[in-house]
Amino acid sequence: MDEVLNVVILGAGNVGTHLAHILKEKGFLISEIYSRNPMHAQELAAKIGCEYCDNLQDLNTEADIYIFAVKDDVLDELAAHIYLPGKIVVHTSGAAETNKLQKISDNFGVFYPLQTFSKSRPVNWNEIPLCIEAGNKETLDQLQQLAIRISGKVLKTSYEQRRNLHVAAVFVSNFTNHLLQNAYMLMQKNALPFDILKPLAIETVEKAFAIEPQNAQTGPAIRSDEKTIEAHEKLLDGQPEILQLYKEITRSIQLLHQNHS
Amino acid sequence: MDEVLNVVILGAGNVGTHLAHILKEKGFLISEIYSRNPMHAQELAAKIGCEYCDNLQDLNTEADIYIFAVKDDVLDELAAHIYLPGKIVVHTSGAAETNKLQKISDNFGVFYPLQTFSKSRPVNWNEIPLCIEAGNKETLDQLQQLAIRISGKVLKTSYEQRRNLHVAAVFVSNFTNHLLQNAYMLMQKNALPFDILKPLAIETVEKAFAIEPQNAQTGPAIRSDEKTIEAHEKLLDGQPEILQLYKEITRSIQLLHQNHS
Repeated sequence: MDEVLNVVILGAGNVGTHLAHILKEKGFLISEIYSRNPMHAQELAAKIGCEYCDNLQDLNTEADIYIFAVKDDVLDELAAHIYLPGKIVVHTSGAAETNKLQKISDNFGVFYPLQTFSKSRPVNWNEIPLCIEAGNKETLDQLQQLAIRISGKVLKTSYEQRRNLHVAAVFVSNFTNHLLQNAYMLMQKNALPFDILKPLAIETVEKAFAIEPQNAQTGPAIRSDEKTIEAHEKLLDGQPEILQLYKEITRSIQLLHQNHS
Repeated sequence: MDEVLNVVILGAGNVGTHLAHILKEKGFLISEIYSRNPMHAQELAAKIGCEYCDNLQDLNTEADIYIFAVKDDVLDELAAHIYLPGKIVVHTSGAAETNKLQKISDNFGVFYPLQTFSKSRPVNWNEIPLCIEAGNKETLDQLQQLAIRISGKVLKTSYEQRRNLHVAAVFVSNFTNHLLQNAYMLMQKNALPFDILKPLAIETVEKAFAIEPQNAQTGPAIRSDEKTIEAHEKLLDGQPEILQLYKEITRSIQLLHQNHS
């Protein structure tokens, strides 16, 4: 893949925006940004310096690869209205089937970056695992050549692996953030600054990946310190939602520990 | 506090070990390490280059400050057997009462470092919040002078604040580690390397502290994407413990979101 690859990105959300920037930075030609929302399409296209499009009938059909960085339920809708025989067409979803875009082209596949993206926060693409899948070997090879120019961590996954990875990512990201949200509420209620918890949160993650989580588990639940657990539950008495979450995760830790010990 | 403070540390576990090293590094005189377990006491004392003691009757009574870095349920036991009038005596617990050591000396207090410690992992003390409390102003002043030599983040807390902080720390550390443990099991089961989740976990924490967790929450639960939730639940069907945790935290996210929207 020595030639400059011509890329169209469909979707101007968090994933589409970050992908457009890194692909441009790595020397790919972004020829067009598509979004149903003309404002979003125009805004991102202006930053990248390319065309934009908000109507599928006007979509540039001359590109080499089409990256569908849209919500899962939009994929089917787009697949029903676009036909790009011979082109590489990939989606960026953790949950959608490998062949979700097969109606568009036989050279379908997946290009799933495992990260939580926000438009305002820079990311280190070289560290982001990229999961690739494809319906044929040629497409998979081309996706791999594209992927290794962006990230040092490219994985050829199966659909089964990717969707399990997506669930694992929900635990690691969405659920962890919810725990931090509960901690935030506790800190606020007690006039304590939330940010003093940051070194603890960072070290918790660092340690879990350094020594594996099963070796890092501490606290009243795993040591069955019922006195402390009761004191915590009493303290949370006036905050029923936080209390319920405390009880459920404490029980889950104890159940896992019993089954493994 | 220009003179060199003479410190005895009771407890040779994770907290005692890290405290002994940082206090020595900062120029304090560690005169003795006490532990019920003579091996532990001797091992740490050898590293610090000080005396050790495994019998309370032999405890050095000439130091300025005694730091009780022991499990909560050991504090009462020690307080029943030690009498050190006039000395500063502090514990390092997130949950024990401020006056837990009052029987030992009227100059009692608390010196609680908010971090998860392992003997094998270095910590950056300057970043670790130190919560201090005391029974009188002189003791609090002396604890503050000690604390600011170790950390850039010293907080005068109330017992109410500290024990709520301790519960928040359980959410941030013990509970987050449990989520990572569940993710670990999912990855293992699907022949995926756990460490590819690390950039996501780190960015999740960084983002939550940068923009506040309520602004960082994403995923199927908060957007009530029932189709994805059902697909995840089906995927977890053969792993009832992980499935239950998935359901409980999903419900908790949705409940919080309903109440706040």
